[in-house]
Amino acid sequence: MIQIDLNCDMGESFGEYRLGSDNELLKCITSANIACGFHAGDPSVMRHTVRQAIAHGAAIGAHPGLPDLAGFGRRRMEITPDEAYDMVSYQIGALMALTIQEGGQLHHVKPHGALYNMAAVSRPLAEAIACAIHRIDPGLILYGLAGSKLVAAGQRTGLRTASEVFADRTYQDDGTLTPRSLPGALITDEEQAVLQVLRMVKEGVVMSQSGKMIPIAADTICIHGDSPHAPAFAHALRIRLESEGVHVQTIH
Amino acid sequence: MIQIDLNCDMGESFGEYRLGSDNELLKCITSANIACGFHAGDPSVMRHTVRQAIAHGAAIGAHPGLPDLAGFGRRRMEITPDEAYDMVSYQIGALMALTIQEGGQLHHVKPHGALYNMAAVSRPLAEAIACAIHRIDPGLILYGLAGSKLVAAGQRTGLRTASEVFADRTYQDDGTLTPRSLPGALITDEEQAVLQVLRMVKEGVVMSQSGKMIPIAADTICIHGDSPHAPAFAHALRIRLESEGVHVQTIH
Amino acid sequence: MIQIDLNCDMGESFGEYRLGSDNELLKCITSANIACGFHAGDPSVMRHTVRQAIAHGAAIGAHPGLPDLAGFGRRRMEITPDEAYDMVSYQIGALMALTIQEGGQLHHVKPHGALYNMAAVSRPLAEAIACAIHRIDPGLILYGLAGSKLVAAGQRTGLRTASEVFADRTYQDDGTLTPRSLPGALITDEEQAVLQVLRMVKEGVVMSQSGKMIPIAADTICIHGDSPHAPAFAHALRIRLESEGVHVQTIH
Amino acid sequence: MIQIDLNCDMGESFGEYRLGSDNELLKCITSANIACGFHAGDPSVMRHTVRQAIAHGAAIGAHPGLPDLAGFGRRRMEITPDEAYDMVSYQIGALMALTIQEGGQLHHVKPHGALYNMAAVSRPLAEAIACAIHRIDPGLILYGLAGSKLVAAGQRTGLRTASEVFADRTYQDDGTLTPRSLPGALITDEEQAVLQVLRMVKEGVVMSQSGKMIPIAADTICIHGDSPHAPAFAHALRIRLESEGVHVQTIH
Repeated sequence: MIQIDLNCDMGESFGEYRLGSDNELLKCITSANIACGFHAGDPSVMRHTVRQAIAHGAAIGAHPGLPDLAGFGRRRMEITPDEAYDMVSYQIGALMALTIQEGGQLHHVKPHGALYNMAAVSRPLAEAIACAIHRIDPGLILYGLAGSKLVAAGQRTGLRTASEVFADRTYQDDGTLTPRSLPGALITDEEQAVLQVLRMVKEGVVMSQSGKMIPIAADTICIHGDSPHAPAFAHALRIRLESEGVHVQTIH
Repeated sequence: MIQIDLNCDMGESFGEYRLGSDNELLKCITSANIACGFHAGDPSVMRHTVRQAIAHGAAIGAHPGLPDLAGFGRRRMEITPDEAYDMVSYQIGALMALTIQEGGQLHHVKPHGALYNMAAVSRPLAEAIACAIHRIDPGLILYGLAGSKLVAAGQRTGLRTASEVFADRTYQDDGTLTPRSLPGALITDEEQAVLQVLRMVKEGVVMSQSGKMIPIAADTICIHGDSPHAPAFAHALRIRLESEGVHVQTIH
Repeated sequence: MIQIDLNCDMGESFGEYRLGSDNELLKCITSANIACGFHAGDPSVMRHTVRQAIAHGAAIGAHPGLPDLAGFGRRRMEITPDEAYDMVSYQIGALMALTIQEGGQLHHVKPHGALYNMAAVSRPLAEAIACAIHRIDPGLILYGLAGSKLVAAGQRTGLRTASEVFADRTYQDDGTLTPRSLPGALITDEEQAVLQVLRMVKEGVVMSQSGKMIPIAADTICIHGDSPHAPAFAHALRIRLESEGVHVQTIH
Repeated sequence: MIQIDLNCDMGESFGEYRLGSDNELLKCITSANIACGFHAGDPSVMRHTVRQAIAHGAAIGAHPGLPDLAGFGRRRMEITPDEAYDMVSYQIGALMALTIQEGGQLHHVKPHGALYNMAAVSRPLAEAIACAIHRIDPGLILYGLAGSKLVAAGQRTGLRTASEVFADRTYQDDGTLTPRSLPGALITDEEQAVLQVLRMVKEGVVMSQSGKMIPIAADTICIHGDSPHAPAFAHALRIRLESEGVHVQTIH
């Protein structure tokens, strides 16, 4: 039976600041990537989000980022692999403690923003992150960009990995995402996004911008939570996947 | 056989900034309270300190503080018990992950600075901290001021506790520390400090400023690491304790 | 001719996080208190807000707070007068530079949150803040709670001051605000709030909770910007004040 | 008459953390670049350093950096020119207020660390920084790497500029610094460093690593303050310069 995971970044509020529609999205998604206080989130927001995720039965993942709250972890920083190792470990541990306290269990790790992008193309960063996760708990699952150095590093390290694909981004002939700076990088038509997901999930391919069918590993779909339409899209996508016989559940 | 623990705050460097003589002190002390990134420390400093502590055989403790790096966690902040619960949990988890990665095991928790002082006199804060520790791992030992509400809360919660006493501070008739704002609060004579420790450890009493003998529980002696004389004093104290037949070891 | 100022805290967004309805409120208010990056705001948000304020003709004020973004500057911190002096000066200077660059001129200073409340009752803190302002520019106007030590310190220092009153808070017989922890502290009925303002502005009195008429100095009305109803209330209040012949303008 | 300025980064302590030998160095140098709270420094350290600089007669410069205390502003961050403009302005303003309060006058601006290096090669960043300075006060002097895009941007903007050269770094044939990652990048022999300075100051040339004489503009010499030998070297260099008839004074 074909199955797929829907993941979403969550717990990105901070102090007085609210962000995202976590509660709505948790009704549809199966993996919650919870910010860990560096790019977003604070200890109280983290706990609240862990509780919500447990209540909705979503798998709990750590979503570590760069130490840049002002830039929301989206600005590249020139960090060393050792620094990546240390800051990722710190954040995973923090979320793990809160998860244990709430009776849950940490399930996966997905780096955030610039750290995710940097680790997708830098083998030393990717290996530092994979190693950090493995030495905390080899049962944790590493979520990374499909085809990236991060997924490869996770596999070499002995971690289970989940290859992440996007509903709302187009792909190039080499299987990489069209950079946001290029035209046509984003898919704004909801039906087109749903069809891209169905093809990736059921056939293991994606049509590149130039019209070629490219093989792609799709274990988990990223739902961008920062759009006001996110909950409606997530709901529609899940309904459509299930009606097509796809089993929507987290990675096991 | 009489035994005592010597504990010291450690890992209080940050980025380029160095503080303390951790390596020297680790030769004498038996419990290392490692800062967790809020009042001092960063993920890389934390890892380095965990490695040092393991290498020297010191018990590893989390040393969570208020989120106030500029004030070194020494300025009181009006936080709620829920906030204390969350920020302590976050910090313990962060250090726990680094400790696990290094092959060590987290042994105890001692709050830092203003958080330590606030929890000594506020039952709600004390209970929040004790509960946070207990729900992460009921085997962790809570270090707190002898006679404080924090130690009492730990005991009620079912934690093992260690009552902390000071070599270089005087006590009042009610068993509390003489506030630093009053004359005679600090003991600057090394021999007097050693004698106070010996009396506390061997006889379970301390002589108050007014000359009364006050009963006091002394499980662990705090060595202040921020003085340049700290390593020499710690060394002298340990030699003297051992020569008096006291077994210097961590809490079990 | 009777005149009054309407002030509102602004620029309290941070990075990706949005807060408040600054643009809507700027259509009604006459003094904008702009957060300076400690409790809220960042350099880019500050610049944007300065531009908006200039475009709407609002007087630009610095709104310095405690260094506690996670607590939004609302948690009391045990700072010394020297620390208050330094952190307030730093924040005023930062906003002043941005204001100069945009062709505006800094007009006033109003401390935020816990710093405002602490300075209202602590003479040393109040004097530190007043002195900091005076030594940057003696032409700056200090906004503080009517009847507070902050206003008194400003006057002693030689600053012009503006006594701030509240539309949506009740007062006690001694002229102080009813603490939020007590019943009846908030006025939720819009008409009642408008009437309280009219009485304060036109008659110089406020009716205490116990029904007594208390004299009160009212130079500026605080509009709380964090409620979704804030723009509508500000609009209604301004219309009503003007229809009653009160001239709504900033402090001169 | 030949003249040269000696500048040094200062005020890089933070909270409890001490860094540098500011007081010793202020006896020799003529321009103090004072950290502004982003990569190092806090409001109280800044004030203390401003007072020291005034007492020693050193020209006071703002030393703005990236918002990365943990990385001491040395890690490149992917910031936009607008972000650079805003964060530099904020920091200059903060220091300017403290300087005004102490009766001094802000004299120059020198970006720190990664921001300095990024602005040396990126025209958009360089122009953002130059424009920020000019719009605060066109009388401020921009210190930047000799031959860099930052100096060029300052000149185009209408600022006076000071070209900075290094005593302890070697140069390549194209006049740029030998990257630290290459062998021979650092000059550790004190006499060699002094001779390089004398040649740059008196003859306007530097000998490249390959032995070529390269023309170089030398308005100010950077004294690295983070070495324990810094005060002794600064003292020796100043004595030598003066004995060679060079007038050591700040930029006018």
